[in-house]
Amino acid sequence: MKALVYNKELKLDNNYPIPDVKENEVLIKTLMVGICNTDYEITKGYMGYQGVLGHEFVGIVEKTGSNVDKNLINKRVVGEINLACNNCEWCHKGLGRHCPNRSTLGIFKKDGCFSEYFTLPKENVIEISDNIDNETATFTEPLAAAYEILEQLHIRPDSKVALVGDGKLGLCISLVFSALNIDFIHIGKHEEKLNISKSNGVKTMLLSELKDSHKKSFDFVIEATGSTGGFELSSSLVKPRGTLVLKSTITAKEGLNLASIVVDEITVVGSRCGQFRPILRLLEQGKINVKPLISGIYSVDDFEKAFEENSKKDTLKILVKF
Amino acid sequence: MKALVYNKELKLDNNYPIPDVKENEVLIKTLMVGICNTDYEITKGYMGYQGVLGHEFVGIVEKTGSNVDKNLINKRVVGEINLACNNCEWCHKGLGRHCPNRSTLGIFKKDGCFSEYFTLPKENVIEISDNIDNETATFTEPLAAAYEILEQLHIRPDSKVALVGDGKLGLCISLVFSALNIDFIHIGKHEEKLNISKSNGVKTMLLSELKDSHKKSFDFVIEATGSTGGFELSSSLVKPRGTLVLKSTITAKEGLNLASIVVDEITVVGSRCGQFRPILRLLEQGKINVKPLISGIYSVDDFEKAFEENSKKDTLKILVKF
Repeated sequence: MKALVYNKELKLDNNYPIPDVKENEVLIKTLMVGICNTDYEITKGYMGYQGVLGHEFVGIVEKTGSNVDKNLINKRVVGEINLACNNCEWCHKGLGRHCPNRSTLGIFKKDGCFSEYFTLPKENVIEISDNIDNETATFTEPLAAAYEILEQLHIRPDSKVALVGDGKLGLCISLVFSALNIDFIHIGKHEEKLNISKSNGVKTMLLSELKDSHKKSFDFVIEATGSTGGFELSSSLVKPRGTLVLKSTITAKEGLNLASIVVDEITVVGSRCGQFRPILRLLEQGKINVKPLISGIYSVDDFEKAFEENSKKDTLKILVKF
Repeated sequence: MKALVYNKELKLDNNYPIPDVKENEVLIKTLMVGICNTDYEITKGYMGYQGVLGHEFVGIVEKTGSNVDKNLINKRVVGEINLACNNCEWCHKGLGRHCPNRSTLGIFKKDGCFSEYFTLPKENVIEISDNIDNETATFTEPLAAAYEILEQLHIRPDSKVALVGDGKLGLCISLVFSALNIDFIHIGKHEEKLNISKSNGVKTMLLSELKDSHKKSFDFVIEATGSTGGFELSSSLVKPRGTLVLKSTITAKEGLNLASIVVDEITVVGSRCGQFRPILRLLEQGKINVKPLISGIYSVDDFEKAFEENSKKDTLKILVKF
């Protein structure tokens, strides 16, 4: 089968073996895959991962293992990306996403979905409604990661909230927050990207319009820029005793100053993957429109063009068809 | 009067003017002052502060302003160090310690207590019981800062807690936590300092004894080393979804990696000054013994020796008598 494999370089292998299906697994035929920044980072060495890329997908169940309900065959599905052991403290708490024995689809010790077929344990797979088209379904994973913030924190209806960063991560958070009626201001560098938020009734502000009076004025600030500069700016917007949410892995450059975190007693909360079911409820009801975030749809044979387009500054989500 | 003034250099001024007492203030005659690391940092440029140093004290009310109860005169007092405006959102919430208009005794826009006399607003001043001797009373401020952690966070009786750092900050936290029956392990580099914790029934561990199995195993980790290395070590001990408390202002060196905060969804909580009344209840009942933390008591005329002793690696608290 065709598979996009990273092994020192990114290459389309036309003869990658179709994986065996274990008793608790399903074999999924891939319909569409999204390119995530993590995929790009892996090609720069992130996690030391080698193997098939990809963790954002929609597909059709082709085959089921001996312990899996056969009714799943031919169902359209999405799937959670952390493969947990189901047998530890974290799994027993329903937090398999933090299972220390986990592997992660296309990121850590498990071939990803950037191939014609791939496997997942049955408990990771969720059938989706016909109401959700393929493009939209492919956004389930990044939107669930956005929704994760609200599993971790109680953002009150009257909280003052700022979202910093207007890339695809920031825009996914904006879509979820506006669908849930959170009152927030979306701060970014790109008017045309912020206009996607604006079209959903979100207040927006260019970085250049930020005033001194905005400093220390928000109860919650969501850092979605992925840059050290964004971290410093976001910190400066948080009220004393307020909360700064980190949605992207940041390696600080020289002299990142944590003093203001202590002096203003700020809470910093790291936030990663989320559960799929809450976001699927929103998608099923048509409460989120991901279409403005799609910058292009490519065939897997054109993966080089797709990744080239993905690496451009103004590109949002690139989808790949199988 | 005598006053220890920092103005490019640290100098004992024998003719510093006794401050005027405003209508809502009291004039305090200083009995004893503690040297804090912040005092040392100020002499290295922290906060750009110039003026009389000092914010840890016990004293006697010498004079009261026209709006202050005269019964306070001759009472032995300690005092909270943040001078709030009493007229903003923060003050109305009882969080004058975060008042944006505040000044801070001996740290920011307000002459400190390292002088024979100084003033404080009446609402900052708390009379103390005869049960609390002068040495102990001088520890009220740093112990209150330790207690602040428990105002911010709910550490449960069954939480797994590690305290990293065995300097005076770490030991103050140890004294408070053990007085409150928190089950924790105190991790440090110096056996003789950890023995102070051990004598209170606290479990201790040398850094060199840390094993791989301690990684990601604590619900709460208190970072009290003030070093980047300590921050990185402390982060590595926190469970996924656990909490890292920062008690000291840290400026990160090159490449401080915040990725694990995001991947393990760790909460980082900055923590600074605390309220005095809860800690005074403990001190009044003799539930905390600060004496093993006192490395020396000097006369103000010997301030140079006192500061020199304070800067030595193995010194804990230095007190100065007036």
